[in-house]
Amino acid sequence: MKIFIMGFGAVGKGVVKVFSIKGNNLKQKYGLDFEIVAVTDTSGTALCDKGLDPDLLLNTKEKTGRVCDYPEYGIPGLSSPEALSKVEYDCLVEVTPTNIEDGEPAKTHMLKAMSDKKDVVTSNKGPLALCFKELVGTAKNNNVQFKFEASVGGAMPIINFAHENLSGCDIESIFGILNGTTNYILSRMAKEGSSYEQTLKEAQEMGIAETDPTQDVEGTDAACKIVILANSIMNMDVSLGDVEINGISKITPESIFLAKKEGYLIKLIAEASLDTLEVSPRLVKEGSPLSVEGTMNVATLKTDLAEDITVVGKGAGSVETASAILSDLISIWKSKK
Amino acid sequence: MKIFIMGFGAVGKGVVKVFSIKGNNLKQKYGLDFEIVAVTDTSGTALCDKGLDPDLLLNTKEKTGRVCDYPEYGIPGLSSPEALSKVEYDCLVEVTPTNIEDGEPAKTHMLKAMSDKKDVVTSNKGPLALCFKELVGTAKNNNVQFKFEASVGGAMPIINFAHENLSGCDIESIFGILNGTTNYILSRMAKEGSSYEQTLKEAQEMGIAETDPTQDVEGTDAACKIVILANSIMNMDVSLGDVEINGISKITPESIFLAKKEGYLIKLIAEASLDTLEVSPRLVKEGSPLSVEGTMNVATLKTDLAEDITVVGKGAGSVETASAILSDLISIWKSKK
Repeated sequence: MKIFIMGFGAVGKGVVKVFSIKGNNLKQKYGLDFEIVAVTDTSGTALCDKGLDPDLLLNTKEKTGRVCDYPEYGIPGLSSPEALSKVEYDCLVEVTPTNIEDGEPAKTHMLKAMSDKKDVVTSNKGPLALCFKELVGTAKNNNVQFKFEASVGGAMPIINFAHENLSGCDIESIFGILNGTTNYILSRMAKEGSSYEQTLKEAQEMGIAETDPTQDVEGTDAACKIVILANSIMNMDVSLGDVEINGISKITPESIFLAKKEGYLIKLIAEASLDTLEVSPRLVKEGSPLSVEGTMNVATLKTDLAEDITVVGKGAGSVETASAILSDLISIWKSKK
Repeated sequence: MKIFIMGFGAVGKGVVKVFSIKGNNLKQKYGLDFEIVAVTDTSGTALCDKGLDPDLLLNTKEKTGRVCDYPEYGIPGLSSPEALSKVEYDCLVEVTPTNIEDGEPAKTHMLKAMSDKKDVVTSNKGPLALCFKELVGTAKNNNVQFKFEASVGGAMPIINFAHENLSGCDIESIFGILNGTTNYILSRMAKEGSSYEQTLKEAQEMGIAETDPTQDVEGTDAACKIVILANSIMNMDVSLGDVEINGISKITPESIFLAKKEGYLIKLIAEASLDTLEVSPRLVKEGSPLSVEGTMNVATLKTDLAEDITVVGKGAGSVETASAILSDLISIWKSKK
């Protein structure tokens, strides 16, 4: 299966690294042969019909910061949309940076690939949170597969999980902690009694929170993810603007302390149910499945037959997120056997 | 797809109930048509080529306690192995009581169905914990499917989850709370400071612990389940006798109190890793994914790419366990489309 990787940041590098680590293993385990035929970044493209070497891709990127410096097959300035027409491939892995204003350029990349009858795998929340129906509809009309497990919860399986493992159940609602940064901040505040501002600063120093943490702490990131889950798991038709969003910046150590005294924690909970689509700080009972700490993500699916089913996993990380992309790729490959 | 249900206790009734509730829904959602062509219990068999009515099956069982009293199509005294030859079916659902001495009669039923080229779905821990390789091997040799999601953790997806959602990862170890009764007892002891004996008695009065709770409290039930996970997820070749087992009957309120003071809980943990196959009480950090309370089951899979992935769900319950059987049946049906 020939893979085109669009975007060579943290997730793109994770995908290439996973191929480097697991290539032989996947061949043995599934008889599966993946070839990376193109990788793009802002500098240009590395592109070869016969497959690029994962380690050489990573080394080139580390050394010069530009994938177009890949020996022999690097093409400086060849932009992503152009490159899509320059090489034969089976599946586009779209992992350019998330844009929650208009979902571009990822949206255009994915629609182009689909209309060229290529399967698409992405971790890109932006276009999914803004125009889910259009993307899924285009994939369907072109009879191609479109998978996006990595877009929610990083390494935490949730979308395919609901469709495959809970195929006998209807999902009635979803409650989750879908943002690791805010979970980290709230967990630390609960443990140390520290203020929001001080804890955020520490998280930034540790690289857990970004320099501009707005999307995380104001709840936008979690809102994108609950939109994707509501559409893909609960068959809703919603987008980012439909979510009622409240962040964590007004949470005080005092409120956390009061909650704790009664056996509760304060968590930033995303909810999708028939009449609610919301991200807001909520009380969660200590010892309940949602009460996980640190940067972990968690989601509870309320089902009609199996009651509550919860999954917990790392919500971020380069190789971790790439593992979700890899299982999407394996699933596509298996379906074509 | 014609289904033969062997055993009409809690799980068998759950399966029939699920067909009653979801029959039309499954037809709409997947175009899927299940027919129950036979149900057996110790009284005999109800059997009809054209399909039995789920509600009438449940009513008959409730009224007389005997499935053979099913109007027109009930056959008193027709025993399970005989019945297997009396009707055309596609898939055997084996849900007779668990026997951890020799796995019978479930083992014989399943081997017979497999050699007749029928797919098999089961929740029956006994034969799986005692002769996993033989069963899986026989299924393979006969080119039939053999699925057993419901045998571990009831409604909590874990086996198919590891194979499908984590297909890109290798599972390096498994840690889990695989028995709801003991989790309930330990959770209550932690909350109320009560003794093991007193808490067990209360759990028995509430119907959470059985009259003879030995298999639960001594760890045998959890040991069966970790054997199934080790074999099916980690590709090991072990059976019940290989597990080092310690139960919870010697846990005192004092030890729970001491642990709690340091931020830990005592849980009955089942572990499968390269050098350990064990069920024993262990310290679990409060707020960690394994620290779930009540009768919940939980399992953490340590993976090579995605770090720890945890699932939590109801470990028992008639309809809950049946939901896992249903997703196995849907998966078999999908694979034949």
